[in-house]
Amino acid sequence: MATITVPDHTSPVEDAENLRKACEGWGTNENTIVSILGHRNAVQRKQIRQAYEEIYQEDLIKRLESELKGEFEKAVYRWILDPADRDAILAHVAARNAKSDNRTIIEIACIRSPEELLAAKRAYHFRYKHSLEEDVASRTTGDFRKLLVALVSTYRYDGDEVDVSLAGSEAKILHNMIEGKSFNHEEVIRILSTRSKAQLNATFNRYKDTHGASITKSLSGNPADEFSEALCIAIQCIRSPQKYFEKVLRNAINKVGTDEDAITRVIVTRAEKDLKDIKDLYHKRNNASLEHAISKDTSGDYKIFLLTLLGCEEL
Amino acid sequence: MATITVPDHTSPVEDAENLRKACEGWGTNENTIVSILGHRNAVQRKQIRQAYEEIYQEDLIKRLESELKGEFEKAVYRWILDPADRDAILAHVAARNAKSDNRTIIEIACIRSPEELLAAKRAYHFRYKHSLEEDVASRTTGDFRKLLVALVSTYRYDGDEVDVSLAGSEAKILHNMIEGKSFNHEEVIRILSTRSKAQLNATFNRYKDTHGASITKSLSGNPADEFSEALCIAIQCIRSPQKYFEKVLRNAINKVGTDEDAITRVIVTRAEKDLKDIKDLYHKRNNASLEHAISKDTSGDYKIFLLTLLGCEEL
Repeated sequence: MATITVPDHTSPVEDAENLRKACEGWGTNENTIVSILGHRNAVQRKQIRQAYEEIYQEDLIKRLESELKGEFEKAVYRWILDPADRDAILAHVAARNAKSDNRTIIEIACIRSPEELLAAKRAYHFRYKHSLEEDVASRTTGDFRKLLVALVSTYRYDGDEVDVSLAGSEAKILHNMIEGKSFNHEEVIRILSTRSKAQLNATFNRYKDTHGASITKSLSGNPADEFSEALCIAIQCIRSPQKYFEKVLRNAINKVGTDEDAITRVIVTRAEKDLKDIKDLYHKRNNASLEHAISKDTSGDYKIFLLTLLGCEEL
Repeated sequence: MATITVPDHTSPVEDAENLRKACEGWGTNENTIVSILGHRNAVQRKQIRQAYEEIYQEDLIKRLESELKGEFEKAVYRWILDPADRDAILAHVAARNAKSDNRTIIEIACIRSPEELLAAKRAYHFRYKHSLEEDVASRTTGDFRKLLVALVSTYRYDGDEVDVSLAGSEAKILHNMIEGKSFNHEEVIRILSTRSKAQLNATFNRYKDTHGASITKSLSGNPADEFSEALCIAIQCIRSPQKYFEKVLRNAINKVGTDEDAITRVIVTRAEKDLKDIKDLYHKRNNASLEHAISKDTSGDYKIFLLTLLGCEEL
């Protein structure tokens, strides 16, 4: 379930006019920006951008970038974009980073639906004039590259049908790989990157039923090289995106020097999807609400914006 | 350029009625079927199928399958389908074949545009409830599998922009691989499967300029294993689909016992695209027209249908 709250009736033209007023004159009215954009869904935000462009012959995103700063600017910028375009930017930053941020790339490849991943790759082409596959492939090497490129490339089947006997045989292949520590990477990459998520979850369940431990638990016994870390993240993303994101938030908050990038990424990308479920998981796991934790770790307009996206009514 | 000719005005309802008449009573009027379907483009054929379904509550494709037979039936069946759906069926037959037909799969992966390949993969999901990637991956092994799955998976950038210095450095990587006969497959697979076609053609041109021989010529000196054969086909498909198809037709016609499957596939999939160019290349290369060669090698309604698709006005 989503966390953002949206009024029954909104007017893109009025929103555009109010945003313009918030940007004009001395100083910017950040509260107005948060109270409008923090309560509009992706379709409405797009309509506001279009209305703003028509009325003022100016790109709202560029205007906001010049008015806002720091983590708040970054969060508003991520939020205001179309989800596919936002994914393209997140993936591009991650793929081109000297210290490549594989986590973000695996999230986009494994948590988005096949159609959403495709839309992100299409937006990537449009923005950067080449493919995400190219950037991922040219910055990585070895088995790690094979896994990452395969995850990003594939167009998975998205249906619910499951082949039970296949789940059994592929759970066995995964188990042999992990227990034998032989890491027959080819077969693991094939299974992880081509099967549907429903099929993979059946395979992971079968693995747990037969061997008494989850596949990620089994994997944690192996040396933590780049390949097995990526494998673990991919499996977590496919098994339970909500649990995965709860963990990302927990680590980002508990880290010495909060990881704002991760917090912003999770809240902005999930506020219209399943952030309510992630919040509930967080509360259960940490005996404290996510809102409380975010409040403690962030400040200013950035904090107010995140709490608004988290669905806090009273700030 | 296409070869099929389409009348200025057509009526899907009249076409459906005439096809129904051609199927009714004793015997089937194959001439009517050819004269209608052989002169309708993909959009019109779809409209005819819809009109037929509405009027007679019957699937035209199934009806034709029950009325026609042999190579003629197969060709009409291939032709009447939506191009994406046809590609899904061609790829499925090829991928599930005991003796896997890699050529068809590579054609679909490398000759179709990125959006066409995607549409074929979407149609594949719809028909078979799993992905093309899965079928290709589960029937192949080793480097050959890596290449084939990567070609099928990727969503290439489709623009014309070319990075000249990248073309130079990647031409060098390909040359080192071929000359050293070391076959560093990983890099070759990465280049072939992730770069845009425009970029790859710049790389192949650079290869030829620097080394005096085309990359396919250089490759022909290597042992003809499954991997290098597939690599060669992929390069030919990306370099010049028309030249590639001319060769497929030439081999199919010259073979002892004509390869009807290949002839049907090329004519049906290219009649609305570039069959005119393929015909011209064939004529130039073989000192005989393609129509003449097809006439000699095929017979009956199948022959008349192929010649109609080839644009022969007088049969």
